[in-house]
Amino acid sequence: MAALQLPAGSVGVVEPRSIYFAEPLKLASGASFGPYSLMVETYGELNAARSNAVLVCHALNASHHVAGIHADNPKDVGWWDNMVGPGKALDTDRFFVIGINNLGSCFGSTGPSSIDPATGTPYGAAFPVLTVEDWVNAQARVADELGIERFAAVMGGSLGGMQALHWAIAYPERLGHCVVVASTPRLSAQNIGFNEVARRAIITDPDFHGGNYYAHDTVPRRGLAVARMVGHITYLSDDDMAEKFGRAQRAPGADGAFRYGYDVEFEVESYLRYQGEKFSNYFDANTYLLITRALDYFDPSKDTKGDLARALGKVTAKFLVTSFTTDWRFPPERSREIVEALLRNGRPVTYAEIDAPHGHDAFLLDDSRYHELVSAYYDRIAKELDLGGRTASRLANGTAVIDAPAGGAL
Amino acid sequence: MAALQLPAGSVGVVEPRSIYFAEPLKLASGASFGPYSLMVETYGELNAARSNAVLVCHALNASHHVAGIHADNPKDVGWWDNMVGPGKALDTDRFFVIGINNLGSCFGSTGPSSIDPATGTPYGAAFPVLTVEDWVNAQARVADELGIERFAAVMGGSLGGMQALHWAIAYPERLGHCVVVASTPRLSAQNIGFNEVARRAIITDPDFHGGNYYAHDTVPRRGLAVARMVGHITYLSDDDMAEKFGRAQRAPGADGAFRYGYDVEFEVESYLRYQGEKFSNYFDANTYLLITRALDYFDPSKDTKGDLARALGKVTAKFLVTSFTTDWRFPPERSREIVEALLRNGRPVTYAEIDAPHGHDAFLLDDSRYHELVSAYYDRIAKELDLGGRTASRLANGTAVIDAPAGGAL
Repeated sequence: MAALQLPAGSVGVVEPRSIYFAEPLKLASGASFGPYSLMVETYGELNAARSNAVLVCHALNASHHVAGIHADNPKDVGWWDNMVGPGKALDTDRFFVIGINNLGSCFGSTGPSSIDPATGTPYGAAFPVLTVEDWVNAQARVADELGIERFAAVMGGSLGGMQALHWAIAYPERLGHCVVVASTPRLSAQNIGFNEVARRAIITDPDFHGGNYYAHDTVPRRGLAVARMVGHITYLSDDDMAEKFGRAQRAPGADGAFRYGYDVEFEVESYLRYQGEKFSNYFDANTYLLITRALDYFDPSKDTKGDLARALGKVTAKFLVTSFTTDWRFPPERSREIVEALLRNGRPVTYAEIDAPHGHDAFLLDDSRYHELVSAYYDRIAKELDLGGRTASRLANGTAVIDAPAGGAL
Repeated sequence: MAALQLPAGSVGVVEPRSIYFAEPLKLASGASFGPYSLMVETYGELNAARSNAVLVCHALNASHHVAGIHADNPKDVGWWDNMVGPGKALDTDRFFVIGINNLGSCFGSTGPSSIDPATGTPYGAAFPVLTVEDWVNAQARVADELGIERFAAVMGGSLGGMQALHWAIAYPERLGHCVVVASTPRLSAQNIGFNEVARRAIITDPDFHGGNYYAHDTVPRRGLAVARMVGHITYLSDDDMAEKFGRAQRAPGADGAFRYGYDVEFEVESYLRYQGEKFSNYFDANTYLLITRALDYFDPSKDTKGDLARALGKVTAKFLVTSFTTDWRFPPERSREIVEALLRNGRPVTYAEIDAPHGHDAFLLDDSRYHELVSAYYDRIAKELDLGGRTASRLANGTAVIDAPAGGAL
C-alpha cells in the first residue's frame, strides 16, 4: 500500500482562554498551591455524548498551543500542528482536542514569573516544585471544568508521554486509550545528569539571584542558553547531526582554512548558539528548573520497589506506545519497559518502533509512517466509539507494529 | 587461558623536569610561539641502541605525569599508572617511556596561565590557539632533545590517540608502532557540539573576563564546573551510570521521600557536582578552551577531501587500534575508520574491540582483557626490537582481535 498524502488541513485561527481555579491544588510535596489559572486551547467540537475528547500533554518547552495559529501572530503555529487538525492523524473533524499549558510553565498559566497575590511580586523561588502527578491532577480539574468525564484518549510525547501514562495510573476510569510517544517510565542516571548540568548552568548564573531575578530586572540568559544547548544535543541523534552539520565550517577562509579562535567555526556551533539564545529570550529559567525536576522525579514504580507492572496494576486503558530507533534520550528499551509492564497486566497494547533517523525530536516531526500509525490508531478509537468519519486504515508497510494479544509476551 | 594477574609494580618516585625551547615553534595557524618550556617525565632506561623509547600522549586533563608518584605528593599517582610500570602492559623494565605535558596545558608547561615575558603578566587570551599538529611538532623537539631519533611506539588514548595518529602521518620515519586507543580520526558534529557547550559555559561566565581572569584575581569556576559535568557524562556509558548511580537518592526523607527542591537529590547529581567543583579548582579555563578546540580541528583528511586512506598514504608504522563497545563519545565505528584507511594502504594493523561497560573512560581503567592485549602487543614490539625480557603472550580469551593481513579487508 502506498503511503497516502495526508491533507494539509489546519485548525486555522484559534483562541486560547484562561481558566481560573480558586480552590488550591494539593501537591505531591504535601504543600498546596492556589488559586491559579491555566491556559487552554481546544480544537474540533465536543460531541453530544461527550465521548470524543482527547487531551494532548506537552513536553518541556511547549504549551497549550498545540495546533493552528493565533490571530495576533500568524507565524506562531502550534507545536504539534502536523499531528492535530482536520484530516490529520489526530483528526479534529472527529475528535475534540484539548491542549493545556501546565501549571508552572511560562505561556500564560500561573508559574514562577506570575505575580504572587500575597506579595504583589513574582513568585520566583517561592513557587513550589511540581510533579507530573500534580500536572495530571490539575489537568483533571480542567476536564471537570469542560464537562469531560472520560477522555477517548490522553496522548503525549516525551514528558507529555509521562503525563499520559500517569493519567492511566491515577484516573483509570477517565480515559479509554493512552498514547505514549518517545517516552520512558523513569529517567536514567544519564538523563538526570544532563538535567542537572542544565540546572547548574542556570542556578550558578549570577543573574539567577536565587530564582528572584525578576526583582533585579534581569534574566539568567547565559545559563538558560547553555542549558538549552546541552538539551538540544540530546534531542538529536549523532547520525542526524552528522547529516545536518557534519564538520561544515561556518565561514572558512581561503582553502577552507580555520580561523583559530573561539568564535563560531563550525555550522553546528552556530546552530546550537542560535537555539540557546533564542530559547533564553522566551523561556523562564525557573520554569526550566521546575520542569526538569518533574522529569527527574517521575517514577510510577517508586512505591512498588521498581516493579513497574505492579505500578500499572490498576490501568484499564488500551495503549499505543511508540518509540524511535535513534532516540538515545529515551531509547526504545525504555518504551519496551512500559509495554512489558502492561502485557504482564494483560492490558492490550500496540507497540511500534519506528526506524527514524531524527533521534528524540522524531516525535515532533512529520514522518509519514509515524503519522499513519497514529492515524490508524485513532481510526480504531473512532470506530470503537462510533464517531463516524473515514474508515480506511492508512498504516503504511514498513512500520514494525506489534499488536500483542492481551497477556502475550513481547 | 585464565587471565594472569599483572604484577602491581610501580615506577615509584619520579621527578619531572622542565625542558626549555628557545626557538619559537611554527604553528598550524601560521603564527609562531616561543620561547616555551615543557614538563617531561621518563620511566625506565633508554637502551644503548636508543631503540626502546615509547612516547605516551595525554588527553584533555592529564599531563606528563603518566606513572609513579611525586616525592612531595605521594597521593598524586600518574594518570596511566595501571598501564605503565615494571612488569605492566607497557613494561618499563624493557621500554623507556616518556610523558610530555603538552604546550598550552596547565601542569607546568608553558600555557595561557604562564607569564608572558613581553608583558610580565599571564598570556591569557593572547595565548595562541594550538592544534594536535602543533603538539606533535613540539613533542618531536623533545625527542630530539632526549636523543631519540625513532620511537619504538607512540601511544595515546582519546585525544592522545589523535596525537599518536598524527605522529604516524607527520613523522613516519620516527616511529615503528602506533597505538591508538578509544580515539577517532575526527570529531563528529555531536562531539563538537558538546565541546561548544563547554566553551560557552566558560566564556559566558562573567568571571572569564575575555580570558584575562588572572588579572582580575578570579577564575570562571562556575563555567568550568558545568563544562566538566557535561564532559563527564560523555565519558561514561548510560549503562555504567545506571549501574553506578541508578536513581539512588542522596539523602532521602522517611520512606525515600523527595525533598522537592534543586539541591542534590540524586546520587548522580552529587557525583557530577563534585567532579565539576574539583576540576574547577585545578584546571585552567583557557587550557580547557584550547584543548577542546584542538580536538575540534583535528582532521587528517581535511586536505584530502575526507579521504582518510589518502591522508594516511605515507604512514609506515604498524598499528594497534583499540576501541570499547560502550564508548559513545568515540564509538568503535570511528576506530574502524582508522583501521579501514590503514588496510586500504596495505598497512599491518591489529584491531581489538573490547566489550567493556565503562564507556569512553574504559581506556583509563584496569580491564584485564584490555591490558593483556596491550601487553601482548608490546611483547611483539620487544621481540621485533630484540629487547629481551618476558616472551609469553598474556592475551586472554574472549577479546576480539583482528590481525588483518596487509591489504586485507576488515
